[in-house]
Amino acid sequence: MYRTHTCGELRLENKDTKVTLSGWVQRSRDLGGMTFVDLRDRYGITQLVFDLQKEEALCMSARKLGREFVIQIIGNVIERSNKNNQIPTGEIEVEVEKLVILNGSKTPPFTIEDESDGGDDLRMRYRYLDLRRNPVKNNLMLRHQLSMETRNYLSQNGFLEVETPCLIKSTPEGARDFVVPSRMNPGQFYALPQSPQTFKQLLMVSGFDKYFQIVKCFRDEDLRADRQPEFTQIDCEMAFVEQEDILNTFEGMVRHLFQKIKGHKMDVIPRMTYDEAMEKYGSDKPDIRFEMTFNDLTGLTQNKGFKIFDEAEAVLAIVAKGQAEYTRKQLDHLTDYVRREQIGAKGMVYVKYNADGSLKSSVDKFYTENDLLDWANHCGAEKGDLILLLSGVKTKTQKQLSELRLYLGEQLSLRNPAVYKPLWVVDFPLLEWDEETERFHAMHHPFTSPKKEDFEKMESDPGAVRANAYDLVINGVEIGGGSIRIHDRKIQERMFDLLGFTKEEAENQFGFLLSAFEYGAPPHGGIALGFDRLSSMFGGKDSIRDFIAFPKNNAGRDVMIDAPAFIAKEQLDELYLNVLPFVKK
Amino acid sequence: MYRTHTCGELRLENKDTKVTLSGWVQRSRDLGGMTFVDLRDRYGITQLVFDLQKEEALCMSARKLGREFVIQIIGNVIERSNKNNQIPTGEIEVEVEKLVILNGSKTPPFTIEDESDGGDDLRMRYRYLDLRRNPVKNNLMLRHQLSMETRNYLSQNGFLEVETPCLIKSTPEGARDFVVPSRMNPGQFYALPQSPQTFKQLLMVSGFDKYFQIVKCFRDEDLRADRQPEFTQIDCEMAFVEQEDILNTFEGMVRHLFQKIKGHKMDVIPRMTYDEAMEKYGSDKPDIRFEMTFNDLTGLTQNKGFKIFDEAEAVLAIVAKGQAEYTRKQLDHLTDYVRREQIGAKGMVYVKYNADGSLKSSVDKFYTENDLLDWANHCGAEKGDLILLLSGVKTKTQKQLSELRLYLGEQLSLRNPAVYKPLWVVDFPLLEWDEETERFHAMHHPFTSPKKEDFEKMESDPGAVRANAYDLVINGVEIGGGSIRIHDRKIQERMFDLLGFTKEEAENQFGFLLSAFEYGAPPHGGIALGFDRLSSMFGGKDSIRDFIAFPKNNAGRDVMIDAPAFIAKEQLDELYLNVLPFVKK
Repeated sequence: MYRTHTCGELRLENKDTKVTLSGWVQRSRDLGGMTFVDLRDRYGITQLVFDLQKEEALCMSARKLGREFVIQIIGNVIERSNKNNQIPTGEIEVEVEKLVILNGSKTPPFTIEDESDGGDDLRMRYRYLDLRRNPVKNNLMLRHQLSMETRNYLSQNGFLEVETPCLIKSTPEGARDFVVPSRMNPGQFYALPQSPQTFKQLLMVSGFDKYFQIVKCFRDEDLRADRQPEFTQIDCEMAFVEQEDILNTFEGMVRHLFQKIKGHKMDVIPRMTYDEAMEKYGSDKPDIRFEMTFNDLTGLTQNKGFKIFDEAEAVLAIVAKGQAEYTRKQLDHLTDYVRREQIGAKGMVYVKYNADGSLKSSVDKFYTENDLLDWANHCGAEKGDLILLLSGVKTKTQKQLSELRLYLGEQLSLRNPAVYKPLWVVDFPLLEWDEETERFHAMHHPFTSPKKEDFEKMESDPGAVRANAYDLVINGVEIGGGSIRIHDRKIQERMFDLLGFTKEEAENQFGFLLSAFEYGAPPHGGIALGFDRLSSMFGGKDSIRDFIAFPKNNAGRDVMIDAPAFIAKEQLDELYLNVLPFVKK
Repeated sequence: MYRTHTCGELRLENKDTKVTLSGWVQRSRDLGGMTFVDLRDRYGITQLVFDLQKEEALCMSARKLGREFVIQIIGNVIERSNKNNQIPTGEIEVEVEKLVILNGSKTPPFTIEDESDGGDDLRMRYRYLDLRRNPVKNNLMLRHQLSMETRNYLSQNGFLEVETPCLIKSTPEGARDFVVPSRMNPGQFYALPQSPQTFKQLLMVSGFDKYFQIVKCFRDEDLRADRQPEFTQIDCEMAFVEQEDILNTFEGMVRHLFQKIKGHKMDVIPRMTYDEAMEKYGSDKPDIRFEMTFNDLTGLTQNKGFKIFDEAEAVLAIVAKGQAEYTRKQLDHLTDYVRREQIGAKGMVYVKYNADGSLKSSVDKFYTENDLLDWANHCGAEKGDLILLLSGVKTKTQKQLSELRLYLGEQLSLRNPAVYKPLWVVDFPLLEWDEETERFHAMHHPFTSPKKEDFEKMESDPGAVRANAYDLVINGVEIGGGSIRIHDRKIQERMFDLLGFTKEEAENQFGFLLSAFEYGAPPHGGIALGFDRLSSMFGGKDSIRDFIAFPKNNAGRDVMIDAPAFIAKEQLDELYLNVLPFVKK
């Protein structure tokens, strides 16, 4: 037996017990005639003590232990004279009688501490060492806990976890698929699923009525920061339900998770239509931890000779409470921020509603103090507040002002990561018009059902059709989304048609689903939550990477195992494949 | 709301309740002035009744309902005059007031009954209809229950579920990998994991100490019956353990599963060495639900002039208790059985130890009745028993006799699928010699640790080295296997060397693991259980296919979605790939 106890469990009650421990040497100190070794395992740290006078040979071997050596010891639990109340085992130490070196270690390339000196690249190359650090280890433990509680909640609510296949068929719609050549079917390929969408719908047709799966999905996208080619989602579907049933069920799940993981009783999750979210926050995933909602000043600001506003489709404003004393430098900084290429505003107008009741703006040339007071009143601004205005094409201005709002919220510490404010955004449009390709794209996906009351507009005004689609947003981050699905072959065909599929393409790619709809498909709908993102959200972190045991970098590489890699010619031959010449990127 | 109750929950207590139900029309019968419809959902069947006299229009619409129509009804729960005690809802029926057809259905291509009239191909093509049948549905519900209980047990025992990557690196050792071309890294490929082996070992190096994952794995093998290109395993690893710790932990898991799923308290799982299993059963996965162990008659049978036995390396016998009265025809049938190409025996010798004490054999020409009595005594045969002998090269004879034993066990109803007899087979050889390639292969895999006491033989006699490897066998089926792993770089290098890897190949494929062993790798080991197989075992079935929601056929095809399939030239171009001409199979 390698151990009787872990390094995290011994307490004063264990005094005078003979114990066997195994673990890693975290650090070691020689103080006079004593050597102290901090022994670490997954559960904690226990201090070992070696006495040079009592056990000279043993102490001398202890002095040779390097960082990260794996050792086993036998010894007696004794009370510390110098207690450490920073750690749970801090009242005791183990006086070692026997020491076995289980494995040595080279000096690690970075320190195995909460704050490591290792850069990202080095940490990823030696990920197995990085995973020894508490913050990363705790993230993965949290993830485990989240997956267990998710499964418990869903299972207790009658959901069945059903595994759907990983080797499926490529559908060119949407993001790019990863494909897998089939040796047994030369020239043909499987695709890895971007989601189990069609399979979970088929399970509804099969009568499984409450399905879930915590499942790997794959997307061959050009990776932006914090995107992974393989990611995990909590995938769910229900039959004989309306939108309301689904929102309630998954609101219940979110509450359950906050209760179990955070010990936090959550309020009812508010709901907001897509239109309202866009009008008030300029975003379909508003961070509602703070107000600072949009005000439309278009009417009040035009026809006073300020050309930029006069030519704008929209003039929108937000109010930063109590920030009238912003300096010129701070305001310039905000202007620079919105002018960055990623945001793209031309400029920013400010109005200071000073504490003394006077008003001062960057467009005083065009507007009287009374004009400014009208603006302030319209925005609900008070003395001491700062008003910021952006203008231009409405949708662009909304996006820009949303960025400014979030940035200001950050600056003013209004976005506390310990505060969680979930929100349902509902009534998304069914379609969005793509200027480039001059056709409609599905806002959610091609299987989303239009609202019944908008059915007729499918013909007359497709762009105005609203969908039974909803997103779960927490603190301004989209955690999940779903919809009521189409379960009628005719409507599904019309949808494919609107999306530019020919009849043949629709049949070729989704014939099995269309066919299934003819054999008694029930009304159904579902949701999928990003599990990596949910984990990082519960961990209070922005990046998902340290919530994944072995993530890939932005080039889609696993630098630890060095994948992807070239494969043997024999492997290619068996697949009847040939790699064409390419220019190395 | 689509329903207030499911079709499985109404009882006599619900009498006079107004309910809303939704589901599928299982069947409908017109009896005089009444129409009865069986409404089905995942939870059961409820009888609906329509009265022609009371509600003529309603009843007429009910008469138009076809099989598998999806309907919603509102009605009153009433007591049946004609109770059906075959189903839980059999004491009531629902008198319908309102009927809504939610979706129609074409006539299904096969009957949705426990015993369907659909052939395999048709059932696979319309898998979404096949999944409506109780036997298949129940299999998937059992699978869900098994996965939940597996997770509960492991989590309660301190195991963490950690997801390992799906896009990894191809290693030509072992079975063939499925590969995935990387668009962002032209000419390079990921591979899908055959198992998370190296990653779980790295997690041990990271200190995670108890890991599990229920995980999809992939093998591009020529598919034998009942093999799937993607399959699921319960993958586990532990650090600071010896073989004994692992066997105890997973024996605990098996007991937990039998207790929770079958309500069956299981005995201690016996253990048998590989050598003993081969000697007594001629198989490393013996079915110990029945005895009929092997007897070595080589010494007793040779040098009496029977050339076949004289030239054989081994003459082995089994005893079929009480079967001395087997007819000539039955014996010929057994001889034919062992002569089949898949088994390959040349012939079979029998001895009948008749009830009257006389002995009769197929080789009476060469042996006296006393000789035969010696054999019988050696085998522990009694009057009334039948002795069957096979001979030849020892290993081949063992395999052949094992097949004969299993076949006889089947014929004599000694293999009751309701009886579960698990067994640990331990002390597997580390290596097996491959005659064809004239080199050693790893019996388990290249990371398996030799037994300490056999370390020296790694140099002097590699073929005799035993491994710390073990299999879990239930009823003659290998459910799982594992080993203590190597955690020392030098031993791992020696192992690669024995397996014919060059230093460069070892470094190129497994450099990250060898490197990890230099940074404080703890002793560790693990196990993996086939989850599809485990499910079918618990379901009392031989085939795994109906325990997988969407399985592939023997050509690796999903005939429902028609995958794999050809992909667009643009997709190939982006991957810098070209499909070579091939002869269509």
